Amino acid sequence: MTLFDADASPSAEPAAAAPADGAAATVRMVVAYDGTDFSGFAPQPGQPGVRTVGGVLTEAVSKVVRAPVELTCAGRTDAGVHAWGQVVSFPVPAGAALDPGRLGSSVTSMLGPEVVVRSCEVVAGAFDARRDARWRRYRYTIVNRPVPDPFRDRYAWWVPEPLDLRVLRLAADPFVGEHDFASFCRRAAEGTTTVRRVLDSTWVDEGDGVLRYEIRATAFCWQMVRSIVGTLVEAGLGRRTAGEMLAILRARRRDAAGPVAPPRGLCLWEVGY
Amino acid sequence: MTLFDADASPSAEPAAAAPADGAAATVRMVVAYDGTDFSGFAPQPGQPGVRTVGGVLTEAVSKVVRAPVELTCAGRTDAGVHAWGQVVSFPVPAGAALDPGRLGSSVTSMLGPEVVVRSCEVVAGAFDARRDARWRRYRYTIVNRPVPDPFRDRYAWWVPEPLDLRVLRLAADPFVGEHDFASFCRRAAEGTTTVRRVLDSTWVDEGDGVLRYEIRATAFCWQMVRSIVGTLVEAGLGRRTAGEMLAILRARRRDAAGPVAPPRGLCLWEVGY
Repeated sequence: MTLFDADASPSAEPAAAAPADGAAATVRMVVAYDGTDFSGFAPQPGQPGVRTVGGVLTEAVSKVVRAPVELTCAGRTDAGVHAWGQVVSFPVPAGAALDPGRLGSSVTSMLGPEVVVRSCEVVAGAFDARRDARWRRYRYTIVNRPVPDPFRDRYAWWVPEPLDLRVLRLAADPFVGEHDFASFCRRAAEGTTTVRRVLDSTWVDEGDGVLRYEIRATAFCWQMVRSIVGTLVEAGLGRRTAGEMLAILRARRRDAAGPVAPPRGLCLWEVGY
Repeated sequence: MTLFDADASPSAEPAAAAPADGAAATVRMVVAYDGTDFSGFAPQPGQPGVRTVGGVLTEAVSKVVRAPVELTCAGRTDAGVHAWGQVVSFPVPAGAALDPGRLGSSVTSMLGPEVVVRSCEVVAGAFDARRDARWRRYRYTIVNRPVPDPFRDRYAWWVPEPLDLRVLRLAADPFVGEHDFASFCRRAAEGTTTVRRVLDSTWVDEGDGVLRYEIRATAFCWQMVRSIVGTLVEAGLGRRTAGEMLAILRARRRDAAGPVAPPRGLCLWEVGY
């Protein structure tokens, strides 16, 4: 959808940038990135040496639209975590006449292939990538073979000891539903809830020792997916039982759960609106 | 096969390292590597600043077996080219008592995950990874989408313009059989032949715009696979016809063919003995 096309109307009045109904317009981008060399998504303006996905994206977008923008994202991924379907939004700057297709390809040619814009559109109204998201889906990939895989190393956790897929699946089931995830949450801000609703929690066997955990929830706590995966893997290795999971949830203490799985295996796959 | 196990017979006499029939014994390793940060496989001892897969492997193996070794490989991959099934061999050093399983895991822990030993065994007789190979299979991966893929970038060539898979397949057919590949060979040593026998030449559609070319031949000339892929892609883009391929082969001039495809997409997949 091209509401604002610099080519089509190079001398368009600023007023033309607003939709007919007079409401604000918002840019919505789907972004993929290799998070390996980033300190996470959230821009850290106070720390100039820290490179973040949001930081480089904000800089690139501001350069293309020639106005400062402030991005909102669906999931603030941690350092080393990847995304295939991160969603980012920002209000169309007042007076800007922009062609979303060209904005997307300009940003991709500035930041790709490390960070790419898979799609870019202008939507009418005050769309907010974070607030309006109905669910987020994460994928966590494990290479379960005696020898590491040079080609998957950046995007998977290598677990050399054999995992019992049947146990992994049994242990993944109890997470579905609404629970207090305090045991799987690194730190909750004062006065906020750690109750979340998980919609799916499944393991996919990709073959050749590649196992993929998929979890979809309305929202996630900090390090929730990696804490769940770290605990599930302990069960898959026989160090915990699948039956323990519900008790760990009920304990509401971080130390009741297992360790946090490494960031390299995690990918924000898709966001639903 | 564990002919020499340091654990089982820690005080074994050197003589125990030779098989019963008195013939030489050879170590045979299957090696996978991410070639991105290497100047190819072939060690370049005269140039100390040049990092090669063969160089780091020779150093690691010599350290573990505590004797200098000289490696032979099935395919001397170029700078930036990867391998999943490279085969490497070297004679068991005189007097060495080695446990091949342990040798493999030691080398992997020294060089992995960039370079890993997928299997390691000691075979009786004078096995030679290069001379004894009956065929080599290479894979070349292309991402054919408008936007590059952050997760495949190290291992695929990004071609944004749409490729016609039907034309790619038609154009791949004429390479099967015995031909003079001078048009697809960077430079042949004086007095050597550029005639090679191709056994398979096919395209696999992996879905989501990922296309894979597979070629199996008894042996390859220098840059042969990448020259073929570069020429096939020109056909797939409509800049050449599939029918031209046989004429290009017959021309026996390098400039009759298309450009060399980038190394990142190429992987030595398997070697047959």
